[in-house]
Amino acid sequence: MNNIDFNKRIILALDVDDVEFAKNWVQLTKSRIKFYKVGLQLFLKGGLNFVKWLKDQDVDVMLDLKLFDIPRTVNAALEQVKDYADYITVHSRMKIMKEIPENVRHKILGVTVLTCFDNDDLTYDGCSFSPKTLVLKRAKYAIYNKCAGVVASGLEITDLRERFGNEFKMIVPSIKLEKPRDDDQARVVTYKQAFKDGADHIVVGRPIIQSDDPMDLIERVQENMRYIVKREKRKEEEDDWELSDLGRHYSQEYE
Amino acid sequence: MNNIDFNKRIILALDVDDVEFAKNWVQLTKSRIKFYKVGLQLFLKGGLNFVKWLKDQDVDVMLDLKLFDIPRTVNAALEQVKDYADYITVHSRMKIMKEIPENVRHKILGVTVLTCFDNDDLTYDGCSFSPKTLVLKRAKYAIYNKCAGVVASGLEITDLRERFGNEFKMIVPSIKLEKPRDDDQARVVTYKQAFKDGADHIVVGRPIIQSDDPMDLIERVQENMRYIVKREKRKEEEDDWELSDLGRHYSQEYE
Repeated sequence: MNNIDFNKRIILALDVDDVEFAKNWVQLTKSRIKFYKVGLQLFLKGGLNFVKWLKDQDVDVMLDLKLFDIPRTVNAALEQVKDYADYITVHSRMKIMKEIPENVRHKILGVTVLTCFDNDDLTYDGCSFSPKTLVLKRAKYAIYNKCAGVVASGLEITDLRERFGNEFKMIVPSIKLEKPRDDDQARVVTYKQAFKDGADHIVVGRPIIQSDDPMDLIERVQENMRYIVKREKRKEEEDDWELSDLGRHYSQEYE
Repeated sequence: MNNIDFNKRIILALDVDDVEFAKNWVQLTKSRIKFYKVGLQLFLKGGLNFVKWLKDQDVDVMLDLKLFDIPRTVNAALEQVKDYADYITVHSRMKIMKEIPENVRHKILGVTVLTCFDNDDLTYDGCSFSPKTLVLKRAKYAIYNKCAGVVASGLEITDLRERFGNEFKMIVPSIKLEKPRDDDQARVVTYKQAFKDGADHIVVGRPIIQSDDPMDLIERVQENMRYIVKREKRKEEEDDWELSDLGRHYSQEYE
């Protein structure tokens, strides 16, 4: 489990179309949250001016444009925004990822499979892989090309960590703060499960913005998160200790 | 073959990152060209302000953002830009297309398969379809959901017209004005072939912008295009005539 400031583990998704409203949310929450996501909706309204303002608040910014075009255009687009955001999302395909200039890759998050797609959607589109297999494959394009990390649903975190270790950022969108009900997103988990499985960051928008007491909610989630992360870290240390103990035991035997 | 103003058949791709440069190009060419494409590169620089300026020049605008996100976000993004562009591109997937509000669909162009992807890229991504099969499948999501049309490579025009008729706009990007050489785009054709096969519009950028005499080039391409379109229309009429003649012949036989 990676060491990450607790106030950067929740990425607050500013999924609104009113720039002033978004600014108010940042002002309200920035004492506890230091990482914000600007998606297509707000970006198309506020443009780079809003992103610049956001960076001036001394927070991290994920610009979630989900670029998906020919390499020349993706790179031209990245050139326009790379200095204003800490992370920028690009749909992860080998042909696109390997063409991204090396000096930008540390800011790129590879989008694997949109959380709204389930197995049927992939089959329908001619894909013979399960969502999980496809996520692993596309994550590889991002990770092997030394991008910052990947965006994938909570259902794939365990497999991604198992396969690729901890040397990349694992961002989980579409997070529910409670158990998911029917929604437009097929592959979602709760934040507790996500952190337990090894997520670095979760993206949360509406559940906070529509909450009656958002600051209290953020505080509670951060408390739970802190507890889960500590517990998982302790487990990792115990595993390490057991492994090294086992190692000592074996070496004694063979001495 | 659809009836389209000749000065709207070439869509000039403003694939530059300098707003003033783009404006100069529009001023220079708008006597002959009445349809412009704004892609990610220029949009990220000039934003909606540039798009508004462009609309004020009394030309058609294709906003080529290639949106590809969960339906809620795609629709929120469309809401921000729908009043400023005549056409907006969205990656064509059933789950996304069918959720687009009905009052926006007449502006939506469904992107099928990026011209940079070849058969190997699809196989690599778990897709068992050929590019052509996948283009036809994704075009269907756009056409059956009553979108304005589709963006597909020149290699698939004939099949698309055969399968879906003429009741949708067929836009062909990555057009070369000469025979294609090695490039970053795997599936490209010349404009002559594209119009012969039934394209409504071709998207051309660099070949015009980098030309020594762009206005002369545009004039020549438009002349050739006019000739090809006329010839194809005459062929269609002759086919119709032959068919109706054959029909008459048969009806006489059965009288």
